[in-house]
Amino acid sequence: MAEPVGDGAGGHVLGVDSGGSGLRIAVARIAPDGGMPRTAATFTSHDPVRTGPTGIDADHMLEQLLPAATELARQVGAVGFAAGCVGAAGMGTLGDALRARLPEALSDAFGVRRLALAADAVTAYAGALGQQPGAVVAAGTGLVALGADLTPSGGWRRADGWGHLLGDCGSGAWIGRAGLEAALRAHDGRPGGSRTLLDRAQAVFGPVAGLPAALYPRPDRPAVLASFAPEVARCAARDPLAAGILADAARHIADAAAAACPPVPGAAVALTGGLLALGDPLRVPLRAALAERLPDARPAEAAGSPLDGALAIAAALAEDRLALPVDGKLLQITGHMADPPPRRAG
Amino acid sequence: MAEPVGDGAGGHVLGVDSGGSGLRIAVARIAPDGGMPRTAATFTSHDPVRTGPTGIDADHMLEQLLPAATELARQVGAVGFAAGCVGAAGMGTLGDALRARLPEALSDAFGVRRLALAADAVTAYAGALGQQPGAVVAAGTGLVALGADLTPSGGWRRADGWGHLLGDCGSGAWIGRAGLEAALRAHDGRPGGSRTLLDRAQAVFGPVAGLPAALYPRPDRPAVLASFAPEVARCAARDPLAAGILADAARHIADAAAAACPPVPGAAVALTGGLLALGDPLRVPLRAALAERLPDARPAEAAGSPLDGALAIAAALAEDRLALPVDGKLLQITGHMADPPPRRAG
Repeated sequence: MAEPVGDGAGGHVLGVDSGGSGLRIAVARIAPDGGMPRTAATFTSHDPVRTGPTGIDADHMLEQLLPAATELARQVGAVGFAAGCVGAAGMGTLGDALRARLPEALSDAFGVRRLALAADAVTAYAGALGQQPGAVVAAGTGLVALGADLTPSGGWRRADGWGHLLGDCGSGAWIGRAGLEAALRAHDGRPGGSRTLLDRAQAVFGPVAGLPAALYPRPDRPAVLASFAPEVARCAARDPLAAGILADAARHIADAAAAACPPVPGAAVALTGGLLALGDPLRVPLRAALAERLPDARPAEAAGSPLDGALAIAAALAEDRLALPVDGKLLQITGHMADPPPRRAG
Repeated sequence: MAEPVGDGAGGHVLGVDSGGSGLRIAVARIAPDGGMPRTAATFTSHDPVRTGPTGIDADHMLEQLLPAATELARQVGAVGFAAGCVGAAGMGTLGDALRARLPEALSDAFGVRRLALAADAVTAYAGALGQQPGAVVAAGTGLVALGADLTPSGGWRRADGWGHLLGDCGSGAWIGRAGLEAALRAHDGRPGGSRTLLDRAQAVFGPVAGLPAALYPRPDRPAVLASFAPEVARCAARDPLAAGILADAARHIADAAAAACPPVPGAAVALTGGLLALGDPLRVPLRAALAERLPDARPAEAAGSPLDGALAIAAALAEDRLALPVDGKLLQITGHMADPPPRRAG
C-alpha cells in the first residue's frame, strides 16, 4: 500500500472501468492545458468483479483494485491520486456497496479526495466526447444511448438499453435475431424469409431443427444471437432482406441517439462499441439515418474508451472543472469534496 | 392391473396427452359410424411427466399412466384397449424412451395391439380437424402451425414454433413483447411508442426502470411477456399502435397457417389455444388476414382438444382407417400392427 497522501497528489488521477469482461485500471497525469489526461500506465484483470445478492461486490473489487493501483502508482512515481473515477456496469442499481466502501478505502490508501462513481454509460460518454454536449450510442451485443445536456436545466438522458427482449433495438443481438428469424421464415416457406441467411445459419449452427436447443438453454442468449450479426452484414451486399435488416437497425440506432441528444445545435453524436465492426453495411445506412434524424448534430468519432472516460472525469474533478451532469445516480461525486482527506485517529 | 386381452378389446381405445401442465388420460368407446369416438372417462394429473437427460421419462409416465388407465378401464367396463395414442410435447426429439418402453408396457397391461406416438401438435391437429386435410395453428404463449396433406405425396408441414427469440410470430409472447417495447419507446421518447401501453405497463409491472429486473432473471420469460398480451388487446380500441400490433400478429398467424396448409381447395383451417381469448381485437384482423392469405381454405372451429385428438387417432388406428400422415417422427405407429399381442413365456 502506498502511504496516504494529501496535497502532494495533485499530478495523478485514478480511473477504473469495471464490466462483464473484467476490471481495467489506469493512472494518468493531469494535462496542464485541461485536455484529456495522458494515460501513464494501465492494469487489466480478466476476473470480472462479482455481483452478489447485495449488488456489485465491493470487497472483490478492492481486492484487485488496491494492489493494482498501488503498483501503477509506483510505476509512474505518483504519490497517491488527487481524484478518482470508478465506472461500473450496473452502478445505478447495483452500486450501493461501492458507494458505501470505495470513498474511504481510496482515501485511506491513496489520499483520493474526490471520487466519482459512474455508470459505465457515463464513462463511455466521457471517453467518447469528453465534456461536450451530445449523445453517445454504446452498441455491441446490446445498445444504449446516453445524452448529456450541459445547460442548467439539463442532465443525462438515456434511451433504450432495455435488453434483448424489451429493446436494444439495432444492437448486435437485435440484428442477429432478425437474421435468424428471416432464415427460419425461408425454411418454413413463410414470407419475409431469406435463403441466403438460411444457408449461413445452417453453416454456422448446423441443421435449423437444432437451433432452438442450441440457443434457449444458454445463459448468454443475447451473445449467441449477436454472433450471427456479422453474417447478416456479410450477406447485405447480395441479399436485400439482410440489407433491410441493417437499414432498420440503423434507423433504430438513430432513433435512440435522437431521443438522448440534447436540443443543442452542433451537439456531438458518437457511436462506440463493437457494432461498428460490422462495417459499411451498417455504417452507410447509419450515416444516412443520423443525418435525417439529427440534422443539426455533428457526427463525431469516439476519442477514447470508457477507461479514458473515467480518467477524464477524474481529472476534471481534480481541477474543479467537471461540467458533466452530476445527478447522484448515473454520476455521483462522493468522498471529501472540500475537506482535506480525513485521517484516522491513532 | 387389468388382465392382458386380445380380440375382446375392440370396443375401447386409450388416449394420452402429456404436456407442461400435466398428464391427461382418457378412454373412449369407438363410434360405430367411424366418427369421433365418444369419451367415456378421463383422468387428469397435474404432475407433468419429467424430462431428464435422456428425454421424456418413460418410467414417470408409466407410473401414472398404468394405474390410471386400469381404473378408467374398470369404470367403463373395458377389457383392455384395441389401440392407443400417446401425444406428448417434444415427442419428436425427446421421445426415445417412450418409443422404447410404451409399446410393450401397454401391450402387456391392456392388450394394446396398435399404439400411435404423436407430437402434441399432431394430437392438437386431430382434435381440432379429425382426419380432414388442412392446417391447425396452436397459439398461446408460443405459436406453431401444422398442416396435414393427405395426398400420397403429402405429409405433415410445420411452420414456426421456433420459440420466442427465433419466431412464434404472432403468439402471446410476441404480442406482449411488442407491447412492452412500445411502452418503453414512449418512455424514452423514441418513435413507435404508445403512452397508453406505457400507462398499462406501469400499472401491471410498476415503474419501468424495474422491468428488466422483473423479466430477465425469470425462467418463464415467454409467459411473462405473454401476460401483457391481454393489455395490448384491451388498449386496441383506443390506441392505434396497440391495434397495429394485433394486426401484425394476425398477419404472422395467417402466414404460418398458409405455409403449413396443403394446396387443396376447401382445406380446413382452425386455430386452437389460449390466444383466441384476446377476443375481437385479434379475431377481426385474423379473419381478414386468413381470407387474404388463404382464400381457398375453409375457416373451421376446432372440434376438440388434443386429448380428443389422441382418442380419434387411436380409434382410427383400431379400425384401420388412419388417414393422417405417418412419418415416423411427428406421428409414428409402434407395437404390433398385424400380430396378436405377444405373451411373455412362462
